[in-house]
Amino acid sequence: MNLSSHYKLLHFIPWTRAKIYKMLLLSVVPTALYYLAGWTWLFVPWVPVALIGTATAFISGFKNTQTYNRTWEARQVYGSIINSSRSFGIMVRDFVRAENKETEAGLHQEMVYRHFAWLTALRFQLRESKSWENVKSKSYNREYLQYYKVPEWESTLGEELKPFLSAEELNGILSVQNKATQIVSNQSLQLKELNKNGFIRDYDYVTLEGQLKDLYDQQGKCERIKNFPYPRQFASINLYFTNILCFLLPLGFLGELSKHVSAYGNWFVLLTIPLSVLVGWIFLVLEQIGESTENPFEGSANDIPVTQISRNIEIDLRQMLGQKEIPPAITPVNNILM
Amino acid sequence: MNLSSHYKLLHFIPWTRAKIYKMLLLSVVPTALYYLAGWTWLFVPWVPVALIGTATAFISGFKNTQTYNRTWEARQVYGSIINSSRSFGIMVRDFVRAENKETEAGLHQEMVYRHFAWLTALRFQLRESKSWENVKSKSYNREYLQYYKVPEWESTLGEELKPFLSAEELNGILSVQNKATQIVSNQSLQLKELNKNGFIRDYDYVTLEGQLKDLYDQQGKCERIKNFPYPRQFASINLYFTNILCFLLPLGFLGELSKHVSAYGNWFVLLTIPLSVLVGWIFLVLEQIGESTENPFEGSANDIPVTQISRNIEIDLRQMLGQKEIPPAITPVNNILM
Amino acid sequence: MNLSSHYKLLHFIPWTRAKIYKMLLLSVVPTALYYLAGWTWLFVPWVPVALIGTATAFISGFKNTQTYNRTWEARQVYGSIINSSRSFGIMVRDFVRAENKETEAGLHQEMVYRHFAWLTALRFQLRESKSWENVKSKSYNREYLQYYKVPEWESTLGEELKPFLSAEELNGILSVQNKATQIVSNQSLQLKELNKNGFIRDYDYVTLEGQLKDLYDQQGKCERIKNFPYPRQFASINLYFTNILCFLLPLGFLGELSKHVSAYGNWFVLLTIPLSVLVGWIFLVLEQIGESTENPFEGSANDIPVTQISRNIEIDLRQMLGQKEIPPAITPVNNILM
Amino acid sequence: MNLSSHYKLLHFIPWTRAKIYKMLLLSVVPTALYYLAGWTWLFVPWVPVALIGTATAFISGFKNTQTYNRTWEARQVYGSIINSSRSFGIMVRDFVRAENKETEAGLHQEMVYRHFAWLTALRFQLRESKSWENVKSKSYNREYLQYYKVPEWESTLGEELKPFLSAEELNGILSVQNKATQIVSNQSLQLKELNKNGFIRDYDYVTLEGQLKDLYDQQGKCERIKNFPYPRQFASINLYFTNILCFLLPLGFLGELSKHVSAYGNWFVLLTIPLSVLVGWIFLVLEQIGESTENPFEGSANDIPVTQISRNIEIDLRQMLGQKEIPPAITPVNNILM
Amino acid sequence: MNLSSHYKLLHFIPWTRAKIYKMLLLSVVPTALYYLAGWTWLFVPWVPVALIGTATAFISGFKNTQTYNRTWEARQVYGSIINSSRSFGIMVRDFVRAENKETEAGLHQEMVYRHFAWLTALRFQLRESKSWENVKSKSYNREYLQYYKVPEWESTLGEELKPFLSAEELNGILSVQNKATQIVSNQSLQLKELNKNGFIRDYDYVTLEGQLKDLYDQQGKCERIKNFPYPRQFASINLYFTNILCFLLPLGFLGELSKHVSAYGNWFVLLTIPLSVLVGWIFLVLEQIGESTENPFEGSANDIPVTQISRNIEIDLRQMLGQKEIPPAITPVNNILM
Repeated sequence: MNLSSHYKLLHFIPWTRAKIYKMLLLSVVPTALYYLAGWTWLFVPWVPVALIGTATAFISGFKNTQTYNRTWEARQVYGSIINSSRSFGIMVRDFVRAENKETEAGLHQEMVYRHFAWLTALRFQLRESKSWENVKSKSYNREYLQYYKVPEWESTLGEELKPFLSAEELNGILSVQNKATQIVSNQSLQLKELNKNGFIRDYDYVTLEGQLKDLYDQQGKCERIKNFPYPRQFASINLYFTNILCFLLPLGFLGELSKHVSAYGNWFVLLTIPLSVLVGWIFLVLEQIGESTENPFEGSANDIPVTQISRNIEIDLRQMLGQKEIPPAITPVNNILM
Repeated sequence: MNLSSHYKLLHFIPWTRAKIYKMLLLSVVPTALYYLAGWTWLFVPWVPVALIGTATAFISGFKNTQTYNRTWEARQVYGSIINSSRSFGIMVRDFVRAENKETEAGLHQEMVYRHFAWLTALRFQLRESKSWENVKSKSYNREYLQYYKVPEWESTLGEELKPFLSAEELNGILSVQNKATQIVSNQSLQLKELNKNGFIRDYDYVTLEGQLKDLYDQQGKCERIKNFPYPRQFASINLYFTNILCFLLPLGFLGELSKHVSAYGNWFVLLTIPLSVLVGWIFLVLEQIGESTENPFEGSANDIPVTQISRNIEIDLRQMLGQKEIPPAITPVNNILM
Repeated sequence: MNLSSHYKLLHFIPWTRAKIYKMLLLSVVPTALYYLAGWTWLFVPWVPVALIGTATAFISGFKNTQTYNRTWEARQVYGSIINSSRSFGIMVRDFVRAENKETEAGLHQEMVYRHFAWLTALRFQLRESKSWENVKSKSYNREYLQYYKVPEWESTLGEELKPFLSAEELNGILSVQNKATQIVSNQSLQLKELNKNGFIRDYDYVTLEGQLKDLYDQQGKCERIKNFPYPRQFASINLYFTNILCFLLPLGFLGELSKHVSAYGNWFVLLTIPLSVLVGWIFLVLEQIGESTENPFEGSANDIPVTQISRNIEIDLRQMLGQKEIPPAITPVNNILM
Repeated sequence: MNLSSHYKLLHFIPWTRAKIYKMLLLSVVPTALYYLAGWTWLFVPWVPVALIGTATAFISGFKNTQTYNRTWEARQVYGSIINSSRSFGIMVRDFVRAENKETEAGLHQEMVYRHFAWLTALRFQLRESKSWENVKSKSYNREYLQYYKVPEWESTLGEELKPFLSAEELNGILSVQNKATQIVSNQSLQLKELNKNGFIRDYDYVTLEGQLKDLYDQQGKCERIKNFPYPRQFASINLYFTNILCFLLPLGFLGELSKHVSAYGNWFVLLTIPLSVLVGWIFLVLEQIGESTENPFEGSANDIPVTQISRNIEIDLRQMLGQKEIPPAITPVNNILM
Repeated sequence: MNLSSHYKLLHFIPWTRAKIYKMLLLSVVPTALYYLAGWTWLFVPWVPVALIGTATAFISGFKNTQTYNRTWEARQVYGSIINSSRSFGIMVRDFVRAENKETEAGLHQEMVYRHFAWLTALRFQLRESKSWENVKSKSYNREYLQYYKVPEWESTLGEELKPFLSAEELNGILSVQNKATQIVSNQSLQLKELNKNGFIRDYDYVTLEGQLKDLYDQQGKCERIKNFPYPRQFASINLYFTNILCFLLPLGFLGELSKHVSAYGNWFVLLTIPLSVLVGWIFLVLEQIGESTENPFEGSANDIPVTQISRNIEIDLRQMLGQKEIPPAITPVNNILM
């Protein structure tokens, strides 16, 4: 997540420079043929350009709406994870009761730490790379990775889970397909034992089990956004239509500008180049921005800051348990928060 | 579901080639009459084309939005099925309790396997063909079926249910109208028996019954999307308007291009053909993409991958029960996941 | 609900022929005055037409979005009725318990049949006619009624309720204002009695009462869509603006086409007539399609198929009770399902 | 709420006549200067008008969408009030139990009548006037009040509450800030007493308290729509942009029409006046319709019919209690239902 | 929140005057070069301007939709806080029971006051400043702060919490990271004690704990909107595209107006300046309005009135407890309510 007022042009222009080169190429070639080789018939009337422009604006607007929705929903789900974690925290602390205060505190800590393990396993799962994601496959995104680090790519899940799970449980978790799912399943097993042994009353037990259900819901929603890309058929036509438009733009400008050649001289058609670059860049950037917002968990600068959110939850829950040694909050680097 | 970055042009052009032929036909005929037969009056002014173009862009944009919503909602519901299945898994395992560990494990397996039966019956129901679906009725979709297989069309429900239900229960299920509905009904009957016999406590019993209600909700939502097509009146006008536009496009281009005939010669109107094909293709593809996204369970390459999701649930629930022999996950073929 | 791939032109053209006549009238008159009477000043420039065209496209697009939403929400609610009915079915069967198996079966049947009564009363209420509905007030819709029958107009509620309610209860129900509401109220009265007499335990009792609350919610949502029309102020401006546009269209075309009179002769302005009919028809059809989608329970060919859905629920619930004599599913007539 | 097929032009034209006068003024002045004073340079090219027209159409479309959503949400909430009231009715009747049938009936009636008091207090609160509402501040709306009466402005809350509350309770309610809130609070106090005295069991008690929570939710949603206007910054720019467009329209038409002066004579520019009135009226009416839909509880002809809905609830609940003397339903006056 | 009918131009023009200066600069320079220096070739054809105008209108419309949604959701959440607070009030009062009436009243007050503390801590958190917020970083917003005061910037949290918490609890709260979270956590601790000591029954206890869960949900939703800005990549392109459009506008007008120079003289191109200012102002204001609606808790004049809402809740809950000394409601200053 970017925290500044807006992206600096100094970052934005390099990030989109490939599009500028593309438009230069697409406009210099026909303009040169017109201007140098005298192919004055090399143009198209403006009307198809305008019509395709409208259709492309519709399609790009649609894409931006949907990718925005994906990001916003992802953030909503992570917001719900915060809320459910806090509720889970007070319920574990206040529903799990023992005569012995130390036993009680130990049980609370065990369950809350397992919750931290779940948060950790989840964010590692979400930051794995998928075949349709762009952060590693597009050069401009790879280049931009110089400005920030993805914590989940700098460490291993096993290492990160160690403080939160017993060695035995950790081994079990690392051997299953979906680690976060089985961590919650372990919570449920412990609740069953606690209920059988009288540490938690029947009604409170079902309520806490309901919290686990909430966590499964939220985990599943994250996985849905992660595993179901913006439909590729829509991504594809957006790409095709924008490129068709960019190909026609210079030809359309040649047609419009050549009307003034008699008044101002042949050089006037050279305006084709800056105008094509400007207008083409706008449509290509629209497409690139949509693409870079599609996948809110891919490790891009526009990601949901799942590392920072998980840490904040950890701080809140540790303070609920009355702990005094609290890890620091995650801070942004170059205005980017992961 | 397509998993690649975008559809390859090498697949996309053949899939849409009928539209290209159509535009060729629609543009070659009037252009020939103009160019060869000298019918220079054969054109329409551009303004009706622009107006219809705008209206069609609106209508097509609307269709794409709604079909996208249908697909996205379908994926949401299947996401909920994942979440509810996991909750169902831990609840069956932890609420159904018996003194004898073997009895307990047997009961857990019976109910979880019946859940697999439900998942199986549901995906077979959803992949049946409907009168308004396109995957089998349109030649370009039938042709595209060479790139992938629909598992529900390669096997029979009876065969697939065998591992999960007793022979007697299987017979009963195969004789009713809505199989998935009666499988859940059987779960409820067993819960009633378990409750009567003390294997499940009263409050836990009602909570588990609530899970069955959730499953009915999710099944019903899938059936709604399956059984209620994108309203045919809207699909119809989209088709009509796009075709009217495509019919007028070449006549409009003839009008625009003929303005330059005096400067560049008669051949200039031949541009009508490539421009019509390009612009017409865009609008026809918009329509075809919408059509191929309308029905997220019809067995197309853009389907919700219900087979793969069901298998993943199976893996998760088997691991919850501590099983070690786990079936493999479903993998994509030609980047298409079913 | 129409089940075909799209409306046939053979049905669609007659259904919209009044709009064609209207556009003919609106375009023939000014064209004749121009062509025959030589009123060559009888035109308007194109720019107001384009501006009004854009505004009308916006407004019509808005109307179609909202009427689509109304229909889709109506279908969602009826989907929920399916889901709640199934849950209600298993809960009645499994929560209402008696020592005597016959007593138990009798109680189950009584309550499930009363539920069928509720479904029947609801669909009769929803298919009553309202002052703003179009299916009976517009000639083209009345004409279209030849292709299908509305079951709720072919029978009486009293007749349809007889198999499901005792004579006494039926009389009571027929005398109240909102029949569906009081049928649910009777369910609640019986539940109270069953609870008092020990046929249903306290916790199960409240859960079943919660199901009645769900039914009230769904009934209320249907009634909301039925009783609250698409706001008439929006319907009105849509009508006004579309008509203004259709009035100006021929005048605008006269202006555009007259520019070519010097080149091709006076007859060229006659193109005004087909172009006006084509473009005007598109905008008028947009309006007519919106209008015919506004009210999803009015008895039109685009209705939610409430009769068919109610029957399907009946089949599912009868099979849950183990009945063998099952009424047949409702099938479409001329591709229209009611 | 208007119940007719659409607003009659005979009502609509007078209601919007101020906009017609405005456009007449804005177009007659520059046209006269052009035509009479010969200021032939008094025009602007069409392009800024088209651009502003597009932007204004966007902004007006947005406003209409949002005000429609406000009205529709308001109706949804009132629909929920119907549903919750019915559930509340059956629960009060069936959960509050006494040995003595008369005591029981008395308790039921007391609580149901207090619910009527809540409905009454709520609708009086909602129909109070706010500083941003238009029904009393705009002359055309005041004028339109001749066609209907707002019941909440014809009586006092104290008078209307008398049949439903004891004198003492009524006095207390009239002295607090938010009357509806404290009526529900009184329901809760009575429930507490009933629970303490054994007229309602513990579990049923909490369920009924949950119904009060629902009522608070619905009341709060109505108050939100009432107290939070359509954001004034958006309302403001809509007003500014529409007026700028209307100011430029005649100047733009002068430019377009003057192109034909050489062919048809100077009088041709007089077309500026009808065209400006027509197009300007459309955009101003869009704005006025949006404005008159913004506030669904202000007492306008487009209001949610809260009086009628409250009466319908009263009828349903009285019939649930078995009462025979039922007040009549509210009927529309001049097709307007309040 | 602004409560007037619309922003006065007298306030609005100064607030947006920087945009007017900008457009003056952008249009005076090229116009002067054209008019004074005779650079008659200094223009661009209109078509790229129209195309960029359409794209920018889409993007700005999108931004306004999303920022509107953010504000509206923020208001919905605060509405839910009202509703949950009222429910919390009646439940605390009616679920927490003691033999001794004074003890009971004391417990009620302690918990309700702690709820006021939560409301206070929440609004202080929400009105802290963020790096992407505009109210303090943009000069026009700082200037506008003369018209109203932000109560949370005029006092300290410690001071405001004093009346509601014991000194010891206050100290604890002021030392933790997220104060509102730990206040709810303290509520839960007290509930646990009350339950252990028999002041609240088991089932009621879990229900009240559920209310705390609701409060966490609502707090978390506010924090989500506060902490997750409108994605900066979208904010950035909106800024870039609008500025590109504004740069091209005067050049486009020069092109259009110069067509009339031969008829009316060179001075006609001076119209470039007012037209550029007018049209450019519209697009820049669209952008500025969007920006000032993005962050509904930043302390701007368009903020959600969280101070006023919190006070209203306080009044309602005090009256529920039967208190007679009630603080006054918050009133607007210069039509602005905070």
